[in-house]
Amino acid sequence: MTSHETACLLNAGDRDARVKITIFFSDKDPVGPYEVTVPARRTKHVRFNDLKTPQPIPKGTDFSSVIESDVPIVVQHTRLDSRQDANPLLSTIAYSSSD
Amino acid sequence: MTSHETACLLNAGDRDARVKITIFFSDKDPVGPYEVTVPARRTKHVRFNDLKTPQPIPKGTDFSSVIESDVPIVVQHTRLDSRQDANPLLSTIAYSSSD
Amino acid sequence: MTSHETACLLNAGDRDARVKITIFFSDKDPVGPYEVTVPARRTKHVRFNDLKTPQPIPKGTDFSSVIESDVPIVVQHTRLDSRQDANPLLSTIAYSSSD
Amino acid sequence: MTSHETACLLNAGDRDARVKITIFFSDKDPVGPYEVTVPARRTKHVRFNDLKTPQPIPKGTDFSSVIESDVPIVVQHTRLDSRQDANPLLSTIAYSSSD
Repeated sequence: MTSHETACLLNAGDRDARVKITIFFSDKDPVGPYEVTVPARRTKHVRFNDLKTPQPIPKGTDFSSVIESDVPIVVQHTRLDSRQDANPLLSTIAYSSSD
Repeated sequence: MTSHETACLLNAGDRDARVKITIFFSDKDPVGPYEVTVPARRTKHVRFNDLKTPQPIPKGTDFSSVIESDVPIVVQHTRLDSRQDANPLLSTIAYSSSD
Repeated sequence: MTSHETACLLNAGDRDARVKITIFFSDKDPVGPYEVTVPARRTKHVRFNDLKTPQPIPKGTDFSSVIESDVPIVVQHTRLDSRQDANPLLSTIAYSSSD
Repeated sequence: MTSHETACLLNAGDRDARVKITIFFSDKDPVGPYEVTVPARRTKHVRFNDLKTPQPIPKGTDFSSVIESDVPIVVQHTRLDSRQDANPLLSTIAYSSSD
């Protein structure tokens, strides 16, 4: 939930997925949504540090993300924990939502 | 399920979440509930060692926690395993419950 | 799914949980069920190597387990991967089933 | 979601499971389905590098997999992260689908 580095999005369906990512903090209003398209039958890696619009995500600040999609996708987060020797942490959640 | 260090709570909704945490043990009655509020559209880190009311959680004792909220929240546990070189373990469960 | 060392069972309810564990293999019939009781409002650690009835689980053999309970419980597996430097792996699944 | 090494499939039921695995990429069409049978009441380890028909999975390319079965099975992925000192990552998802 803190400093997630990347999210891998899988769209196994036949329609492009319009994905909206919102970032939440402990002490300020959320930012976003950041919009990403995952083409039909493709995966997409999202690096949170690369998200620039509507604004870059503050660095050095823990955050949580909520990912919404107009077609069912699978989301997998990978996090590098900077307190350790770069142990990757993996967490998988399947999202299925509609407009 | 043992010695969870922290839980990160995400309330992505528009209403404050009233959260109750109950701690279970293998050999004695559960303690709690510990009450925490997660403001609307905010995250909150909970360190179990910081929970003091109604009573501190016994140290050095394995425990499990049940987290209840009056609005849907997302809970992510992080555990430091003291038997190892502080390998963090990550587990994500989404809770959605109502009063 | 291989060589799970322990399972932590949480029964947050008010009725004792009668739990049946069945062990599956790649090349022979499953064994079990092993029966365990988790008292109401208690946790219980199960070490698979300690399961002796109806028969000890073969050592050095990968296996998978299915855990059934007559009341809802939460199950968390911890595995020590002997190929590594004892990295614990954590996996949480909530089971809710009835007789 | 990247370079999964193996998947462990558990078929706890009384009917053989016909399993189809499809591999997705970020920049090209998915390949598959790769077909695997998991006998009734058995486990099966699948190494993705061993999948040869209809075509070997490209090496050195990140991919995601979708696993479909004609009877309910449990799937557990283990991944070796080659960027690290072979830290295994574990992720469990239960699949329940019908034809």
